[in-house]
Amino acid sequence: MNSTSLDRSLVEQLVRQALRQSSPTSTASPAVASANAPGWVDGKPNLRVSISARHCHLTDEHVEILFGAGSVLKAEKDLYQDGFYAAEQTVMVVGPRRRMLGSVRVLGPTRPFSQVELALTDSISLGIDAPVRHSGKIDGTPGCVLVGPAGSVQLTQGVIRAARHVHMNFADCEHFGVHDGDMMKLKISSPDCSVTFEDVLVRADKAAKLEVHIDTDEGNACNLDAATEVVLKKSGCGCEKK
Amino acid sequence: MNSTSLDRSLVEQLVRQALRQSSPTSTASPAVASANAPGWVDGKPNLRVSISARHCHLTDEHVEILFGAGSVLKAEKDLYQDGFYAAEQTVMVVGPRRRMLGSVRVLGPTRPFSQVELALTDSISLGIDAPVRHSGKIDGTPGCVLVGPAGSVQLTQGVIRAARHVHMNFADCEHFGVHDGDMMKLKISSPDCSVTFEDVLVRADKAAKLEVHIDTDEGNACNLDAATEVVLKKSGCGCEKK
Repeated sequence: MNSTSLDRSLVEQLVRQALRQSSPTSTASPAVASANAPGWVDGKPNLRVSISARHCHLTDEHVEILFGAGSVLKAEKDLYQDGFYAAEQTVMVVGPRRRMLGSVRVLGPTRPFSQVELALTDSISLGIDAPVRHSGKIDGTPGCVLVGPAGSVQLTQGVIRAARHVHMNFADCEHFGVHDGDMMKLKISSPDCSVTFEDVLVRADKAAKLEVHIDTDEGNACNLDAATEVVLKKSGCGCEKK
Repeated sequence: MNSTSLDRSLVEQLVRQALRQSSPTSTASPAVASANAPGWVDGKPNLRVSISARHCHLTDEHVEILFGAGSVLKAEKDLYQDGFYAAEQTVMVVGPRRRMLGSVRVLGPTRPFSQVELALTDSISLGIDAPVRHSGKIDGTPGCVLVGPAGSVQLTQGVIRAARHVHMNFADCEHFGVHDGDMMKLKISSPDCSVTFEDVLVRADKAAKLEVHIDTDEGNACNLDAATEVVLKKSGCGCEKK
């Protein structure tokens, strides 16, 4: 794996991660037994906020169509969540009216369905009206054409704007007093452009590490790279009400 | 003025405005005398949230250099604030490393200094590290090259990401209990991607109409076109504190 071969957009965006160590507001006392939970540092959750640039997930079948019979995804860079990676492979995504995004990174491993995740800015530039959806909820979403070096695939659906979410393990859940499927809020303090993101869905898994995923529009709206503090909170401080 | 000649980006972005009639949270009783304040409807403030796509402001001198001796800006579409307009003219903005934005709309009237306002996504694509600044605060900001049909201009500074702000008149100020220079917060409720923008600067003027300006990244982060409610509030509800 040669990190110097990563293209600029990948370096800048896909794996651009704010390794900010926050002091997440706790709404429950951490269990003593959580000290060794995945991703914890010094016995505490270690919040990471990452920008997911546009990318796609592919089925095994589509990998072979796009990159040639017998092809498999090759890991180029591991993502923070164990077992997931940015692949060497990229595809062209073609929308209606002959607009396209020339190089969209494939993330691995493969999945039972193919899915393209765009920021809204990307989808406007591509001319596709991508709805905000959580990963895998692609029924009735628009399709597109994927073009690889060995072939192309017509997706009848699967183009979405990935809804913001936070991966966490069950020790993190206990720390924050939340459960899988709950909503949280994330405040990013950034000079002259602080933002509180509502609707941050909890996706709990025993192996997950605490990490919020937002897209490039969201990351740019709050200038994440310049952020001075990130705070993740359970929704319901009362501020949501007018 | 022929609106059919507007290019797609202008139609889609520059003048894309959420004409949402909100119920702004009042922190002061509106004065009876305010019933005829600019922009008020039925004796109340009528909040508008508008997305400002990338654009530039030019001096008279630069208009002549870029578009030819004797040239003046020609209004193509009036903006919501009286006296301001999107001009027919566009310029090419060239950054370092030969990257460029081919068609950036000029807004009128002319100003004592030229200034380019980009979303962060634009500035990344252009390769310019544009700081978040309020309009006119351009000391020490990066420059760029502007290219028009008749000539080019080297700006030594003036490329910014415009900080979010709200225009209002003094009746609006009284209604919200704020003054020129205060900060407010704007909550956009949008399916699966609600956002609260902090750091919304009050820019008060007797002739202004109540209008928040955010950029395309901010508008896309909350999918403004799909928003169901917008609420402008004085900062300080307590939610800012952890």
